[in-house]
Amino acid sequence: MIKLYDLAGADENRRFSPYCWRAKMALAHKGLEAVCLPWHFTQKEIISFSGQERVPVLVDGDNTVSDSWEIAKYLEKEYPDTPSLKLEAGEVLFTKYWVETILHPDMLQLLIMDIYNNLVPEDQRYFRESREKLFGKTLEEVAQNREERLPRFQKLLTPLRITLKKQDFVAGETPGFSDYIVFGAFQWARCISAFPLLKTDDSIYAWREKMLALHDGLAQNAVGFPV
Amino acid sequence: MIKLYDLAGADENRRFSPYCWRAKMALAHKGLEAVCLPWHFTQKEIISFSGQERVPVLVDGDNTVSDSWEIAKYLEKEYPDTPSLKLEAGEVLFTKYWVETILHPDMLQLLIMDIYNNLVPEDQRYFRESREKLFGKTLEEVAQNREERLPRFQKLLTPLRITLKKQDFVAGETPGFSDYIVFGAFQWARCISAFPLLKTDDSIYAWREKMLALHDGLAQNAVGFPV
Repeated sequence: MIKLYDLAGADENRRFSPYCWRAKMALAHKGLEAVCLPWHFTQKEIISFSGQERVPVLVDGDNTVSDSWEIAKYLEKEYPDTPSLKLEAGEVLFTKYWVETILHPDMLQLLIMDIYNNLVPEDQRYFRESREKLFGKTLEEVAQNREERLPRFQKLLTPLRITLKKQDFVAGETPGFSDYIVFGAFQWARCISAFPLLKTDDSIYAWREKMLALHDGLAQNAVGFPV
Repeated sequence: MIKLYDLAGADENRRFSPYCWRAKMALAHKGLEAVCLPWHFTQKEIISFSGQERVPVLVDGDNTVSDSWEIAKYLEKEYPDTPSLKLEAGEVLFTKYWVETILHPDMLQLLIMDIYNNLVPEDQRYFRESREKLFGKTLEEVAQNREERLPRFQKLLTPLRITLKKQDFVAGETPGFSDYIVFGAFQWARCISAFPLLKTDDSIYAWREKMLALHDGLAQNAVGFPV
């Protein structure tokens, strides 16, 4: 059975990493079963066999693959008879970097205290130290007045919003890995925070509902906040 | 011969519309010759046969197509034996809306006086009135201190910059319509303004050089400012 090391909170069933969600949705997309092992930020030694310090880490027989993009490519190559993740188009990479350099940083600032509050104590120490160094201020200062920053966040979603008015999924008529990349961000929020990021009349909200329902409600059924 | 109505400046050979550049590059991509007829913003009646008021308008025999995206789809369908523009992936649409809702508005604010200064007098009146209404301030106020806004513009390009570090073109190993969509914006700037938007060590600059050279230097040879 495929194993996936999956970031967990103080509640071991709270699995909130956006990158791990990409991998879990990709596995489900291909109909591949996997055991998702809970892992904490500070358990670097547990995944040291992968040659790096971050999850997701996928172990499939003798093969170990880290990095969600590499995992998607691995699954495409290793399981060619399963539904495609549609990685070929160059624009998938553009979508990925938009999520990672535009969407994630803004979202992190909105969710940062919720993330902190849901970690085990040793991860809390690690998270506070590393993120406060990153931002040059305290977590509490980063999180301040997040309601006021919501309009800016909403505006930043404009290209995604219009795309999802025109077509059902980011990847077109059916979901692809680009959908899982974007969805990972929203599922990160949903698993860790009760702060509503989307209005119910938003095309992104409607798309997220479809994503939550995919693969027998895999994401819908995850421990989180149904907002 | 295919005809394309193409936005022109006071110098009739200055053809600066980003949307027209998409169409011209798409035609060249497919090896299709076209006559590009100069057109001014205020010559609405000349293209009224197309049922709308904007360029590009393509006339191919009995067929009239407006909107650069519709033109690309038309060329794909009508000329199936020519090189593909790679429109199928849903992420192409996301890239298009990123360009139109994020890149273009910021770029317009940097270029607005250069555009104004290069128009025929009747277009200047139209452009000033419509754009001042849009921004709620004078063109001169919009253009103010553009050097100071350049770092913000540079930052906004981050997902594009990283993508073009990882692969040769937005569409992957070979150019597609998504490249022409993004390039249209930079060619708009190059045709109308001597204000340098890109540093020479930027991966976007290197990609733009490749785009300028495509199709026998079609874009390179256009009237503009080689910055």
